[in-house]
Amino acid sequence: MSFQKKLKAAAVGNNSLLCVGLDPVPERLPDAVMGKDDPVLYFNKKLIDATADLVCAYKPNFAFYGALGEIGWSTLKATVEHIPSHIPVLVDAKVGDIGSTAERYAHMFFGELAADALTVNPYMGGDAVAPFLEYSGGAVEAAERCVFLVCLTSNPGADDFEKLAIDGCPLYRRVAEKALEWNAVAPCGLVVGATQGKAIRGLRELAPELPFLLPGVGTQGGDLESAVRQGQFASGGGLLVNASRGVIYASDDSDFETAARRAAEALRAAINRFRSPPPG
Amino acid sequence: MSFQKKLKAAAVGNNSLLCVGLDPVPERLPDAVMGKDDPVLYFNKKLIDATADLVCAYKPNFAFYGALGEIGWSTLKATVEHIPSHIPVLVDAKVGDIGSTAERYAHMFFGELAADALTVNPYMGGDAVAPFLEYSGGAVEAAERCVFLVCLTSNPGADDFEKLAIDGCPLYRRVAEKALEWNAVAPCGLVVGATQGKAIRGLRELAPELPFLLPGVGTQGGDLESAVRQGQFASGGGLLVNASRGVIYASDDSDFETAARRAAEALRAAINRFRSPPPG
Repeated sequence: MSFQKKLKAAAVGNNSLLCVGLDPVPERLPDAVMGKDDPVLYFNKKLIDATADLVCAYKPNFAFYGALGEIGWSTLKATVEHIPSHIPVLVDAKVGDIGSTAERYAHMFFGELAADALTVNPYMGGDAVAPFLEYSGGAVEAAERCVFLVCLTSNPGADDFEKLAIDGCPLYRRVAEKALEWNAVAPCGLVVGATQGKAIRGLRELAPELPFLLPGVGTQGGDLESAVRQGQFASGGGLLVNASRGVIYASDDSDFETAARRAAEALRAAINRFRSPPPG
Repeated sequence: MSFQKKLKAAAVGNNSLLCVGLDPVPERLPDAVMGKDDPVLYFNKKLIDATADLVCAYKPNFAFYGALGEIGWSTLKATVEHIPSHIPVLVDAKVGDIGSTAERYAHMFFGELAADALTVNPYMGGDAVAPFLEYSGGAVEAAERCVFLVCLTSNPGADDFEKLAIDGCPLYRRVAEKALEWNAVAPCGLVVGATQGKAIRGLRELAPELPFLLPGVGTQGGDLESAVRQGQFASGGGLLVNASRGVIYASDDSDFETAARRAAEALRAAINRFRSPPPG
């Protein structure tokens, strides 16, 4: 099944465009998990169990596992394996390097980790992206995965390079144009910050059929209504609205699971208010 | 001691601007190491022992360790620990993400791994770079590390975005200009592909005192003479000329150590021919 079909099935099944970012920081874990063998894994499993019927995808960010040192890889792998197989897993790593190195990252995330989708930084251009589109060693075939190109991000630094104009056209749109070309090789998506206002509409017009990962709602303060209305497909959907800290740290007490569930329910409902056609 | 001083001391001590990339692929290891407990680590240690008096730095690329799965982190950490303490370690990971995530990558590479320097992808702008400049949790202080910004790379895809002109100034020069600003916060360097001809001279004129990591000699076919002559400081040095596959896979037989040493000696000598003032 293609990534987009898997995503749509999860979105319809759970009536949700919410993607939960599994980005645990050891210092922020609730006391209730601290005695466990692998506290981060225990925390993640409880969060997944509490929210798996409320999301369209999960997005673990590799940095949070790499920073754990030696235990990081097994924690990430066991986390991914705990996610129900019908929910897509988008690994956020924003990698990008020359071909022989990019092939190793593709092997890491698509081969060893069996991710459904991966974020890739486009700065180094087409031959640095190609190995992610073409990797053939994993359990999931290339046509069933999705490569999300970092396009227009939610942070203030997006002004530094992403929005610079090349003959009147901002760099991030050049990235989106290339992503449309690369999408002919294997399925692509775009990372589009929820804080980016009407630029989201422009990108949706340019790339009407590429899925968008929308980070930046919640902690980063993006305007949810505008992001959802402008970012969704004409037919609805096509969006992964990501929230991390607002959900996983909804409570730092022993009620962290129910608090995460409540936060996820509230966000799902908030997103659904702005979907058209309305879900259901 | 600042990164630049440490680099200079190693370069003078070993009469070398050669940086060896430790990028092992399990399938390419010599038969002679295959029976070992951790073949990649054994291979790396032998390579380091064979070349530590010939290099100014080592550059392990994280992708090659991440791709090993569960053993990757301990292999990378033990590799870094095996490098003599007077030789700088530049970890190549080309990471970049919003602040809270970038802080985790900084913790991973500067905190847990105690790298002297790290490559960072600038696409997401200043606040995505800042956590690498400001990280304070490691054994090495910020002022003693170096953040190498991916600027102009050696691959054909450099044409896709890096060379696009913004008001007549290519994007990669905008990156270099920002790196000069960031260098006021903590020491920065630039990744400049050895294949990039006279653009290297232009970047050296723009940033006369930032160290350049020059990948792309050897397998990638960069012009060594032009890269060294145009990339070095006016006073000489300031360059890490990287070679990976040409050194570490100089032989796939039991003589891999002596072959790597010979390849490193030849490259060091080839680089030294183009240094001015001449070394020694």
